[in-house]
Amino acid sequence: MARVAILGTGLIGTSIGLRLRHNGAKDVEIVGHDRYNDFAGQAKKQGAFDRVESDPREAVRDAGLVILSAPVLANHKLMGEIASSLAPNAIVTDTGSTKAETLRQAAQLLPTSVSFVGGHPMAGKTETGPRAAHPGLFDGARWVVVPSASAPDRAVRSVTGLIEQLGAEAMFMDAEEHDSYVAAISHMPMMVATALFRFTHDSEAWPELSSLAGGGFKDTTRLASTDPAMSHDIAVTNREQIVHWLSRFRASVYELEQKLSATEEEEELFRYLAQAQFEHESFINGKIGRAEGEPGMDKSAGFDFGSFLMGDVIRDKLAEVQRNQEDRLTDLEKKQRSKRNV
Amino acid sequence: MARVAILGTGLIGTSIGLRLRHNGAKDVEIVGHDRYNDFAGQAKKQGAFDRVESDPREAVRDAGLVILSAPVLANHKLMGEIASSLAPNAIVTDTGSTKAETLRQAAQLLPTSVSFVGGHPMAGKTETGPRAAHPGLFDGARWVVVPSASAPDRAVRSVTGLIEQLGAEAMFMDAEEHDSYVAAISHMPMMVATALFRFTHDSEAWPELSSLAGGGFKDTTRLASTDPAMSHDIAVTNREQIVHWLSRFRASVYELEQKLSATEEEEELFRYLAQAQFEHESFINGKIGRAEGEPGMDKSAGFDFGSFLMGDVIRDKLAEVQRNQEDRLTDLEKKQRSKRNV
Repeated sequence: MARVAILGTGLIGTSIGLRLRHNGAKDVEIVGHDRYNDFAGQAKKQGAFDRVESDPREAVRDAGLVILSAPVLANHKLMGEIASSLAPNAIVTDTGSTKAETLRQAAQLLPTSVSFVGGHPMAGKTETGPRAAHPGLFDGARWVVVPSASAPDRAVRSVTGLIEQLGAEAMFMDAEEHDSYVAAISHMPMMVATALFRFTHDSEAWPELSSLAGGGFKDTTRLASTDPAMSHDIAVTNREQIVHWLSRFRASVYELEQKLSATEEEEELFRYLAQAQFEHESFINGKIGRAEGEPGMDKSAGFDFGSFLMGDVIRDKLAEVQRNQEDRLTDLEKKQRSKRNV
Repeated sequence: MARVAILGTGLIGTSIGLRLRHNGAKDVEIVGHDRYNDFAGQAKKQGAFDRVESDPREAVRDAGLVILSAPVLANHKLMGEIASSLAPNAIVTDTGSTKAETLRQAAQLLPTSVSFVGGHPMAGKTETGPRAAHPGLFDGARWVVVPSASAPDRAVRSVTGLIEQLGAEAMFMDAEEHDSYVAAISHMPMMVATALFRFTHDSEAWPELSSLAGGGFKDTTRLASTDPAMSHDIAVTNREQIVHWLSRFRASVYELEQKLSATEEEEELFRYLAQAQFEHESFINGKIGRAEGEPGMDKSAGFDFGSFLMGDVIRDKLAEVQRNQEDRLTDLEKKQRSKRNV
């Protein structure tokens, strides 16, 4: 009988177990382990595992595939703990949010008879723990695969096979490339949401601010609710990339402040906001990437920013903004002329 | 027969009309107007109005209450257009997102026989237009009321009565105070979301980034989809406050970058992230404001940050972080000692 061991029975680990058992492969035994026995017990009660083990070494015994789905640093610790109990030829994968450090740790800690293939499902929610898990969590999601240099094709195929069984789509990447991309699209937004929430919450006006907060503030800061064990491990294993993207983001906020302050540049501000709305709606409606050339030239969505600007409402508003700006310049000229005449 | 005129039949104006007609006051006629006749026609078809008028002066004729619910600058323009057609003793209110400039415009543009009481419902969503409207939009929402200096009690009571009929709760504020608070809790998050989306979208790596983007990025940037006519008018009528909060926010992102970069301060970083999660979850679960004193001392939610830190998972993680930090310091000491011995 084939055996799959899942170490870490939070949202991700439990969802993997649920889906594999839901798929109903009868000749596979799914074994779960969590540092916290009540998490593992809860996950088993939900039907994610055939068996749970409180000792990770017992959980991985004779397993052909071992999935590490604890927070990143806990995965590294688990590698050290299970190293001598792994079956020869076992395949080890993980679901952590950073990859370069994990590949280094795997090379150091795992025996050479074992193959490591890193993974990162681009799925999740802020709710954590087994109770938030469900078998459809990965449906249609991308799942980044980062094989170690020594991993044989057989091991890589096992992991992409697992990903397909879970309803996700494998996407190959280099570890450094992965860490830079997710720093931008996942870790930076998480840190921005956290900083925005902490900053507003720490303000003296928080009693008034919190009573006025609507859905917009809640959505923008939602990622501040991320499990701190997870966000901490992400932060310390990808700090350079996150700081790099955060500081570039800060520069772009500063640019927006300049636009907001420049009364003579309202047209530019309006175009900036209009393009944000147009591109964001295209993105939410499923548009990935962009056509070559200028964003305004992009015909790939069947509708470009130029025609958006020519829509009734947007065109009228643009004309109004231009008119207001001209009026203001005329006023300014008049004032300067009258000054000269004084 | 009493008459209420609603000028601007987007999400807010149409929702007001729907709710008033839903409440079924038989002796009130609800008249709608929009600069775009198809918007007004659509809103009427949905049942928001008894009658629509393409001329705003016709819409307000003999109306006892006039509600301006177009974007802020369009509301100002409407004030000028309707001024000479308003019934004597008419009460004019608005639903715009900024208040100081609107109160100045009302004082300048409206006849003295008319009372102006500013308003701002803290409800909304990024979907705009009459189709997104529904009669329950304001249920349980706060609705800021900013009476003009000259508004008599009778006018203020009419507006708070309207707010109650719509299912919302009136909250009195000074115009400058309002503009500062909403800059922090609403306009700043909107600009942060917009800057975050534009910055990421304009990056060379956007094709890869967009294919990796999950629900977290979508939520954090959701407000980038705000109608640009609305966000532009907010920006130009509240620019100083928005820029003030944005630049303070930028400083707090910089502080977080420092925490992320400081390998010897992982415990502080963990506490920062853990407190964000704790406070954010309390906030999402309905906690408004905070008790006096330190956030950690706050017992008002029946559960404080101190006990949160003592929960199994968080306490173990904190111990792990502290241990890692000590190990690192020991390593550092060893290295320095061996250097001295060289």
